[in-house]
Amino acid sequence: MNELKIITLKESVFENNDLDAQALRQELTSHGTFLINLMASPGAGKTTLLSALIPLLQKELSVAVMEADIDSSVDAETIAKLGVRTIQLHTGGMCHLDADMCRQGLYELGYEGFDLVILENVGNLVCPAEFDTGAHMNMTILSVPEGHDKPLKYPLMYQSCSLLAVNKIDVLPYFDFDMGKLTEYAKMRNPDISIMPVSAKTGEGVEALAKYILNVISSAAK
Amino acid sequence: MNELKIITLKESVFENNDLDAQALRQELTSHGTFLINLMASPGAGKTTLLSALIPLLQKELSVAVMEADIDSSVDAETIAKLGVRTIQLHTGGMCHLDADMCRQGLYELGYEGFDLVILENVGNLVCPAEFDTGAHMNMTILSVPEGHDKPLKYPLMYQSCSLLAVNKIDVLPYFDFDMGKLTEYAKMRNPDISIMPVSAKTGEGVEALAKYILNVISSAAK
Repeated sequence: MNELKIITLKESVFENNDLDAQALRQELTSHGTFLINLMASPGAGKTTLLSALIPLLQKELSVAVMEADIDSSVDAETIAKLGVRTIQLHTGGMCHLDADMCRQGLYELGYEGFDLVILENVGNLVCPAEFDTGAHMNMTILSVPEGHDKPLKYPLMYQSCSLLAVNKIDVLPYFDFDMGKLTEYAKMRNPDISIMPVSAKTGEGVEALAKYILNVISSAAK
Repeated sequence: MNELKIITLKESVFENNDLDAQALRQELTSHGTFLINLMASPGAGKTTLLSALIPLLQKELSVAVMEADIDSSVDAETIAKLGVRTIQLHTGGMCHLDADMCRQGLYELGYEGFDLVILENVGNLVCPAEFDTGAHMNMTILSVPEGHDKPLKYPLMYQSCSLLAVNKIDVLPYFDFDMGKLTEYAKMRNPDISIMPVSAKTGEGVEALAKYILNVISSAAK
């Protein structure tokens, strides 16, 4: 196994992140690389869901992963075991990634030649949603134990994502979680959001989620 | 029931938050009010644990609560039902509270005469840990479904807290959660951290937690 590459991101020098993100997105598109920005609370199951999802996506696409964390490399080590190219990004205490920080990661990764790069953003339901990373798709995960009221409290996360995976549905019997209310609250923030229930642990719903993502990517390529 | 007071916090004008926090802490101490800053991920169970804890604390102390959120008032409504004075603080999108924002809340609340004020900070494991709110004690909650690796990934939160409540222990059988590893990782960040397992849902451990908090407050008053 190759040694895991860890890079510490520098703060951006660009004043206008939206413009910078747009430029990065166009650059990626011109190389045929689709970028997904995955955001969620700490412990929602980002890494575990990616571990279940990536083998299915790899049947159709070449995939690479960027793991952003404040500290540690435990997630990147987990993902690297799947045999996909993985890079660990350390934010040096920062709570989010903007487009330039994302670009630093993509260049270190060597993104060209990959059909799909997934950025696992810092575990945080607030700050990452404020910054366009240059991704083609923003995705979030809400895990059942977190409760169905999260779209009420963290509006921007749900507004900025087109896909919401509801993870840990295997423990639904043990929590007071109302899927109907979650759907209502999430659609209140973003009427077009797609909601997909999954369990990264048991695998339930993961195939449908992979299919959904592959469809979005192939539609974007047309 | 009184109508719930909701205030929108203004950004601080103070350049040195640490000095400002120190001044606020001294002001609170001189009025005999102890301030707890409660921080955790979204969905860790901050409000549910407070709902179980406050009736026990109220047997000994007069308690008031400040609920900080980006949007919505669902948590403040829950706490107000306990019959404690509660105020909802809206951060206007901001991911944390500093000392001056905390002071705005305390003044609107009318903190004088209360032995204990609990600030429920914005659900976020990153940013709130960076700002001294003027509290006498920082407390965090980690819920079992989040996983035992969180102190590895979010070092500052565990460094800055003297008390860690491990919540949702009623669902331990359904998750791969290693209490030994959690203890090891948390102590690595802060050797003096106190770790208390609880279930806000079943009430297990809540009495011991209340006793611990009451001891800290009475020691501080000496």
